[in-house]
Amino acid sequence: MNTLAVELNKTLEETVIFRLLSDFGKRFYFPKGIVSQSAEAKKYATRFNATIGMATLGGKPMHLNSLKELIPGLPPEQIFSYAPTPGNPQLRELWLDEMIRKNPSLAGQDTSLPLVVSGLTHGISVLADLFAGPGDCVLIPDMFWGNYSLIFEQRNRASISTFPFFNPQAGLNIEGLKDALNRVTGGKVIIMLNFPNNPTGYSPTEWEARALIQLLKEQAQKGLNILCVADDAYFGLFYEKETHKESLFASLASLHENILAVKVDGATKEELVWGFRVGFLTFASLNIKTGEYDALDRKVMGAVRASISNSNNLTQNLLLRAMQSPDYREEKKAALAILKERYFKVKEIIARLSPGSKLEPLPFNSGYFMTFSFGGSSTEKLRKKLLMEQGIGTISIQDRYLRVAYSSVDLHHLEELFEIIFKTAE
Amino acid sequence: MNTLAVELNKTLEETVIFRLLSDFGKRFYFPKGIVSQSAEAKKYATRFNATIGMATLGGKPMHLNSLKELIPGLPPEQIFSYAPTPGNPQLRELWLDEMIRKNPSLAGQDTSLPLVVSGLTHGISVLADLFAGPGDCVLIPDMFWGNYSLIFEQRNRASISTFPFFNPQAGLNIEGLKDALNRVTGGKVIIMLNFPNNPTGYSPTEWEARALIQLLKEQAQKGLNILCVADDAYFGLFYEKETHKESLFASLASLHENILAVKVDGATKEELVWGFRVGFLTFASLNIKTGEYDALDRKVMGAVRASISNSNNLTQNLLLRAMQSPDYREEKKAALAILKERYFKVKEIIARLSPGSKLEPLPFNSGYFMTFSFGGSSTEKLRKKLLMEQGIGTISIQDRYLRVAYSSVDLHHLEELFEIIFKTAE
Repeated sequence: MNTLAVELNKTLEETVIFRLLSDFGKRFYFPKGIVSQSAEAKKYATRFNATIGMATLGGKPMHLNSLKELIPGLPPEQIFSYAPTPGNPQLRELWLDEMIRKNPSLAGQDTSLPLVVSGLTHGISVLADLFAGPGDCVLIPDMFWGNYSLIFEQRNRASISTFPFFNPQAGLNIEGLKDALNRVTGGKVIIMLNFPNNPTGYSPTEWEARALIQLLKEQAQKGLNILCVADDAYFGLFYEKETHKESLFASLASLHENILAVKVDGATKEELVWGFRVGFLTFASLNIKTGEYDALDRKVMGAVRASISNSNNLTQNLLLRAMQSPDYREEKKAALAILKERYFKVKEIIARLSPGSKLEPLPFNSGYFMTFSFGGSSTEKLRKKLLMEQGIGTISIQDRYLRVAYSSVDLHHLEELFEIIFKTAE
Repeated sequence: MNTLAVELNKTLEETVIFRLLSDFGKRFYFPKGIVSQSAEAKKYATRFNATIGMATLGGKPMHLNSLKELIPGLPPEQIFSYAPTPGNPQLRELWLDEMIRKNPSLAGQDTSLPLVVSGLTHGISVLADLFAGPGDCVLIPDMFWGNYSLIFEQRNRASISTFPFFNPQAGLNIEGLKDALNRVTGGKVIIMLNFPNNPTGYSPTEWEARALIQLLKEQAQKGLNILCVADDAYFGLFYEKETHKESLFASLASLHENILAVKVDGATKEELVWGFRVGFLTFASLNIKTGEYDALDRKVMGAVRASISNSNNLTQNLLLRAMQSPDYREEKKAALAILKERYFKVKEIIARLSPGSKLEPLPFNSGYFMTFSFGGSSTEKLRKKLLMEQGIGTISIQDRYLRVAYSSVDLHHLEELFEIIFKTAE
């Protein structure tokens, strides 16, 4: 094993981080190569910096004017230069500040500094590399984003184990999670907590969130090492009063020494910039020291370096600029209000049309989507019929569920949309 | 194994592609999930498209005006929307057109359509996933980019085997490559061909390129299956008359049925957009049919989906816009001229200062860099001294070599830069 990896592992060996690392995670490190020497030169090369793998002129990146003209407000180095491997330092600080503002109970708790990844998928993929390998169990509700399977199972050869998402009372199935946790062997488990959930659009209530956290704490107390991943892709899109409105990460951050909490989040949905590919990884656990967070960060940076080198610099700088704008929060609020209005409209339409129908709505209260459970034969056939005969696009899942994204249908079309869906389903 | 993977493998089983795939590569596929259903809906959902994981209003992506204002010339969908998994179709076509223009001997040869990845590292990482696993041999000259080691060895557990880059006549060591190839066992090898080379700045002459291609053909004829990766990061930065000025990909594309050629290239250096993270993967082999390229593309798309979902959309669109600008080629020429002028200056300075010095320049004729072999004790110490006492940043490699990036030092500073380097080395 590389000596740098050995050093990092030594720093981490008493922590839950080390107990959770995969073989990949154990052998990873951030090399003392070009990038690390360049970073040093950035500080001290006051005369000439001949380390940079860029073409510069007068200390600025050379560039094509046809490109520069398209982004008149940013200086060339914010448009064309490489970003640091862990991301723009100002953006990382600001993202943490905002995280605490959006999750007040995080204040005063220790976390790592959010590290930039190239969108949430990249964040999950880096986590899978560092923590999930053959023999490891990834526990998720049975309603989940399909890419979890491609990443954890196909890519990293871990085993996904599911439990029914909802209980008979149409609430979060905490008992089901408890049963699933009790079946875990080997002392290690990875749990994906994706709220608002894709595809159902469900988020836990205050009460459910408390029960979930309590359950995880009990399991940790029994000696289970748990990587709790809060996949907060749709964070903030909460529409109901009783919904828990902080990330579960805030409740997990200093819960127990056997729990490593990770927040995977990003600008993608929160800032309405799907194609920007700016995500973040933030870690927290009870009694983790700064040097230990640093050691983990070096491993994450190694995984970033070996997968993409670094994330997009322009979109990080654009995002930073927007987040510093005085209008930023008002603009976000306006977008949320539009989605919230659609949500209540959808809820009203479905309450009216679903009784007696073959389409039974699963509980939903947040995010972009709602999902029907279908009493007919095949949602794939239903999807095709809707698409080819009615010109309506929906998503079929497991041939049993139909996902409808009201995030991408205007308010005044919702009535017509759902009427056709219900009619076609009969 | 997933049935989609089984189908793809069946399509590929008679080809060199299948013979070269790693276990990861064999089990990968592009899922028929949300992305593929959304793509279908994009075509046929003429009334409402409720598949999209985006928030739209009036058919356009919702967005923050603080962001939109920074890119006044592009419509919102080119700034904020997701890019397709394999990249912007127009950009892919245009990149191929440009590739043929820059490599005239490619004209008339069959290749796959360039597939967008998030920068060259991501391209190499995807290739490593699909083709390199434990037991596989990756053959590279002993002067190579350090990230090859992190990717192939640490990430994918393949074995890197090196041979001396230069022969005693200060030319490309074709004999050394031949010896190394003769030592390969197991009938499969991956060769990284990185020209202009990082760190040396060397590219083969016309004669060397021909000899190299001839050698690879002979090895393929003997039954060796070869993945030839043309890492063209610095493509086009050729400064000498006798240098081979096409990518080796063009000579490898239809060389032999046992050779799969891949071109990893990108806008990063070619278009002076280091932080844009737009790279491309293009495949070619003799007698590969369209359906077989398609099957390989589905596997690449699966690997892209499982690592980053999709690449940055804004920078793809900016790049497309710039490449369509009437000034594009002239702007590129001007940048090349600046680097070329520096190259000849560096060459002249070094010819003057190096005789009798402890710093011996390795052959260089292209790219961003030149590298010294150091006759003293440690280039790491030399680097530190240059940095801390002289404010000059350089890169130390293997404690024996010193890399100097003249790409990032202006012409009128080069004399002073090298004088100090030579003086400090004594």
